[in-house]
Amino acid sequence: MSKVLTNRGEDYAQWYNDLILKSGLADYSAVKGCMVIKPHGYALWEHMRDELDRQFKATGHQNAYFPLFIPKSFLSREAAHVEGFAKECAVVTHYRLKNDPNGGGVIVDPEAKLEEELIVRPTSETIIWNTYKDWIQSYRDLPLLINQWANVVRWEMRTRLFLRTTEFLWQEGHTAHATREEAIDETKKMLEVYARFAEDFMAVPVVRGVKTANERFAGAEDTYCIEALMQDGKALQAGTSHFLGQNFAKAFDVKFSSKDNTQEYVWATSWGVSTRLIGALVMAHSDDSGLVLPPKLAPLQVVIVPIYNKDAAMREKIDNLAGELMAQLRKANVRVKYDNDDNSRPGWKFAEYELKGVPVRIVLGARDVENNLAEVARRDTSAKFTCALDAVYDTVQSLLEEIQVNLYQRALQFRDSNTHQVDTWDEFVKTLDEKGGFISAHWDGTGETEEKIKEMTKATIRCIPLGNKQEAGKCILTGKPSGQRVLFARAY
Amino acid sequence: MSKVLTNRGEDYAQWYNDLILKSGLADYSAVKGCMVIKPHGYALWEHMRDELDRQFKATGHQNAYFPLFIPKSFLSREAAHVEGFAKECAVVTHYRLKNDPNGGGVIVDPEAKLEEELIVRPTSETIIWNTYKDWIQSYRDLPLLINQWANVVRWEMRTRLFLRTTEFLWQEGHTAHATREEAIDETKKMLEVYARFAEDFMAVPVVRGVKTANERFAGAEDTYCIEALMQDGKALQAGTSHFLGQNFAKAFDVKFSSKDNTQEYVWATSWGVSTRLIGALVMAHSDDSGLVLPPKLAPLQVVIVPIYNKDAAMREKIDNLAGELMAQLRKANVRVKYDNDDNSRPGWKFAEYELKGVPVRIVLGARDVENNLAEVARRDTSAKFTCALDAVYDTVQSLLEEIQVNLYQRALQFRDSNTHQVDTWDEFVKTLDEKGGFISAHWDGTGETEEKIKEMTKATIRCIPLGNKQEAGKCILTGKPSGQRVLFARAY
Repeated sequence: MSKVLTNRGEDYAQWYNDLILKSGLADYSAVKGCMVIKPHGYALWEHMRDELDRQFKATGHQNAYFPLFIPKSFLSREAAHVEGFAKECAVVTHYRLKNDPNGGGVIVDPEAKLEEELIVRPTSETIIWNTYKDWIQSYRDLPLLINQWANVVRWEMRTRLFLRTTEFLWQEGHTAHATREEAIDETKKMLEVYARFAEDFMAVPVVRGVKTANERFAGAEDTYCIEALMQDGKALQAGTSHFLGQNFAKAFDVKFSSKDNTQEYVWATSWGVSTRLIGALVMAHSDDSGLVLPPKLAPLQVVIVPIYNKDAAMREKIDNLAGELMAQLRKANVRVKYDNDDNSRPGWKFAEYELKGVPVRIVLGARDVENNLAEVARRDTSAKFTCALDAVYDTVQSLLEEIQVNLYQRALQFRDSNTHQVDTWDEFVKTLDEKGGFISAHWDGTGETEEKIKEMTKATIRCIPLGNKQEAGKCILTGKPSGQRVLFARAY
Repeated sequence: MSKVLTNRGEDYAQWYNDLILKSGLADYSAVKGCMVIKPHGYALWEHMRDELDRQFKATGHQNAYFPLFIPKSFLSREAAHVEGFAKECAVVTHYRLKNDPNGGGVIVDPEAKLEEELIVRPTSETIIWNTYKDWIQSYRDLPLLINQWANVVRWEMRTRLFLRTTEFLWQEGHTAHATREEAIDETKKMLEVYARFAEDFMAVPVVRGVKTANERFAGAEDTYCIEALMQDGKALQAGTSHFLGQNFAKAFDVKFSSKDNTQEYVWATSWGVSTRLIGALVMAHSDDSGLVLPPKLAPLQVVIVPIYNKDAAMREKIDNLAGELMAQLRKANVRVKYDNDDNSRPGWKFAEYELKGVPVRIVLGARDVENNLAEVARRDTSAKFTCALDAVYDTVQSLLEEIQVNLYQRALQFRDSNTHQVDTWDEFVKTLDEKGGFISAHWDGTGETEEKIKEMTKATIRCIPLGNKQEAGKCILTGKPSGQRVLFARAY
């Protein structure tokens, strides 16, 4: 079989693109920067979304839906927000087309110009806080814990499938609280929901941290984040949770009467993860044969492939065995498929399901079945072994758990062996260029130095890890005193 | 307690608006014609969406996601489609804002004008068939059975919450087939999925039918529909399923090589239902006290309200009873809440849960509990009865089923008694004005007559019912011969 993917070692970026396209996760579209999420990719997103949604609801949140469009003037209300955000976005200026009088199809009707332009939401703080103004009067209306699953648009010049697209799918939580402390607790709680989801479901270890002022969300007082390490040694921000202080409440005049009957501004948080997580998942685990998906999120967890011989009775026996096994596994909520399509050869099917990242493959071959055996293969290690037919059901179940754990452990080991502590500038630059990964180093705490380091090396401060050890040291660039190390990396 | 809603009999439209706003289903937004779907409304939509999604998957469909934006030129490709559709829509002309040099916030950057304008999708046939061109080469790629859950925008001048909003949420199925017959079968199959969902889950009886040429979807060869009757005697189109022939395949040049190795155009269907269904659900069952929701879709199915006396031991006993009952009901997948909030009085809670349409209310009052009794109330009939405490669990379960059936039967009876067969023009006009409802009458089959009737009476042909009896008659307007009756109504 010919290789369908570029090797990771050869060209990581090309490998990633090949993989996304050929495994059927996504496709390019006719609209620049926008992708089509194909059925395999969307099924993966559904499993991620459903689990996150369960966790949001379990932590007391409700879903709602706010308009796609934001009046242009809303963006100017919160000063920092407009500075950091509002510029690259899709602007709706007209609401009607008409037939071209010259016969050239349809043209924009100049009569149908909007009085105020509408922006396709790049994020929804402004429209939501404008609505919360009507929903919040008293401390009894708080906390207000709302999440929205939506599409958003940020006009991007350079796009990459899942990692950076003009339109993407995400969820955005927007909560309102009576006190600063409660809002900060919420911000941290949701960061922890994201972190556990990344680790327990995506099998991707993450560093929980807080962003420097330079890297904060536009309008936030603090931005918490989870940072993951990809196989090429670059970091990827996998989720953020923002403590917004009273900034949006002040911008949209959202006050509540407290228990003491005073009027106070409401405290806010917002937090989001997006289809970018799919990019993180792919880059954390996959290999030169295709996707490697953690069983908890894999759209298909087990595939059964028959290898018939010419004996019709044996064919029937294999089909029956597969049918029984499928029924058993489905009862245990395992997502399983039997692929007995005669149009493709077993070898082609093996490669195809490897490409698609199915965690476990069971082969029911005529010769094995005669001896009451089946072949079981795991996607993560490529290991194959034979197994008594009556043990397949139990084996598959424990194997799915084992693969989930192994993927996490493997990624954790990779991250740990690619996290480097450095103390000098030369070592910093050398480590970045030769090894990549996370670099734990001292920094003098100024935005100026941070910016300089970024310009010189393309490395950014990914975060100040939560619970960071306080230790005296010297900034790698300026030599000025520093009270703690921060985590640098080149990043997606 | 003061009435919060306008009476239906007094002003049906006002009753509907009051109800949507006050029951917490939706709210107006700062963007003209766009609504905010509030948590109660969104939870209802989630239950509807999840059930429909299960049925789509059970019939072999997969979900995917296509871009929000459609290049303007795509709309002109299918001639009928552009005629019927493309005009009233949101047009993106620019991709960047900039700071107003005069300090007036942000303005559209005139430098950032798109070469080709993008339309916010009003429906996705064009962008999807442009993609299918790359996905379909051979008969082996068919059928392609894809659904998308998405937001769409149609610029509406007159909007009504849920019924007609500029942005709404929906699903759109887009399937591709090798033969005309298979595509027609798919069109009908999905209509039946919609009809069963309306009847079995929404408890709304529907007429399955086919639209006249005038009322067809722009670009379809045939549009099948389900039509429901609202309590004010107006009809509401609750879902459509289109047989698109080869129109979009020809417009986007989508061909496949058949088993005989000939190149043929692909056959298409599309089908959709939207958040409009929420409007239908509300108008079919609700009353002057608030929402009446069918148990299968109600976000909350059962509410337990305590009425304490001053005895602390009794208070604890009631709380324990409620806790046990909740645990039991939740185990049986009943969505139940115990509202023992001391800040509101029982009477206020009763009215609130009636307004929100909770099907069953259980009251644990101190005096009843002393006698091992509870009070059970059903929302659909307002009937109340006492019930032995140890029978509450069984009673609630059977009551939920009974309410589901009763709502359907009641709506069916309403529809049947509001479906009139008329044979003359005078009778037609009189029935329309005095009774409303569906009117079954003869029509000469011409678009001209249909249009005239619409102009004269605002009544439209809702559909030609499937399996319609063939009978000779005379058109109510022109007296010309007719081979069957069709269903007229004034409609939403």
